[in-house]
Amino acid sequence: MLWKAVDPSKVHRLLYPQVPVVVTAEAEGRIGGMAAIWCVPLSFKPVLVGVAVARDHETSRIISAAGAFGVNWLEFTYAERVGELGETSAKTQSNKLAAVGLKTIRGHVTSQPLIEEASACLECRVVERHRVGTHDFLIGEVAAASANAHFSDYWDFTSYNPLLYAGTVDVERRNSVFRSIRGESLIVPLKHQP
Amino acid sequence: MLWKAVDPSKVHRLLYPQVPVVVTAEAEGRIGGMAAIWCVPLSFKPVLVGVAVARDHETSRIISAAGAFGVNWLEFTYAERVGELGETSAKTQSNKLAAVGLKTIRGHVTSQPLIEEASACLECRVVERHRVGTHDFLIGEVAAASANAHFSDYWDFTSYNPLLYAGTVDVERRNSVFRSIRGESLIVPLKHQP
Repeated sequence: MLWKAVDPSKVHRLLYPQVPVVVTAEAEGRIGGMAAIWCVPLSFKPVLVGVAVARDHETSRIISAAGAFGVNWLEFTYAERVGELGETSAKTQSNKLAAVGLKTIRGHVTSQPLIEEASACLECRVVERHRVGTHDFLIGEVAAASANAHFSDYWDFTSYNPLLYAGTVDVERRNSVFRSIRGESLIVPLKHQP
Repeated sequence: MLWKAVDPSKVHRLLYPQVPVVVTAEAEGRIGGMAAIWCVPLSFKPVLVGVAVARDHETSRIISAAGAFGVNWLEFTYAERVGELGETSAKTQSNKLAAVGLKTIRGHVTSQPLIEEASACLECRVVERHRVGTHDFLIGEVAAASANAHFSDYWDFTSYNPLLYAGTVDVERRNSVFRSIRGESLIVPLKHQP
């Protein structure tokens, strides 16, 4: 037995690397967006997805007010912008996506903001919200789903280069580490010391 | 706008590639194991994880009877065995893990089977079970977590080579496709035509 105990606060990191999605929503004139890796499909019919969000997160509050949210996939080339989303708050920015240089368009079905640069997007309506320990678990019914030409039955990984989150590490200052399935590794320095 | 609609039955594939875990459980003398990518962390304190399982899956029934389950991470080198798990059923095998060539040890806390070849394992107690569309969503409280020397605060990706599931495609016959973060790609032919 060559295993050793893992600190409970680090258990979620065993699942790394993970494709982050950007969860978007708009309410009361504020556009929020947050990178989420605690995201999971839940059902085929109806098509349901779940996202666990920190309860005090401003984007979480915006989703509650909107009753709907977008889910967006950004490629590896957008690693820096996805990293920066964790550095700004929708509390201080009326359009958090614009603050990190991302363009938004409006979903046809839910009117929620979607990211124009995304390779794929979902429009979801919140159908359930559960308090689960430190987080809220939102269950969204997928009202619309779209993707660019790199996806048909599956992603074409010869053209689509997914972003994989591998952790936020301290090397003098905090850095987000991203990986790709092509052997790439990118360290994105975070601006603020939280 | 260069997006096109995604078939609702394929929405979950937008999250690919994903690290699969192998969920294990034993009850009434039967050991079940199934690869799961519909797995998500839910809370830091208590440490909770969620797994969405197809309701008719035999391993799902075994987990219910056991009231607990293991979560196991296998490296890229075990791609074939993880692929084969989908080809056998705990209905016909009393030890499904042994049937694909994996060794089991017993967890110290829950007595549930864990995979000896795994890089990391969790022992979980089922604390909630929700019916969510076509699936059951099990919430497990992590009672114990362990990993090999490749994990300390994070995985050391220079030594740990995680397995990434990229889909099951038809090229004359069904094949599971796996990827790594080192640019590797592996096609595992499935034995049975389901």
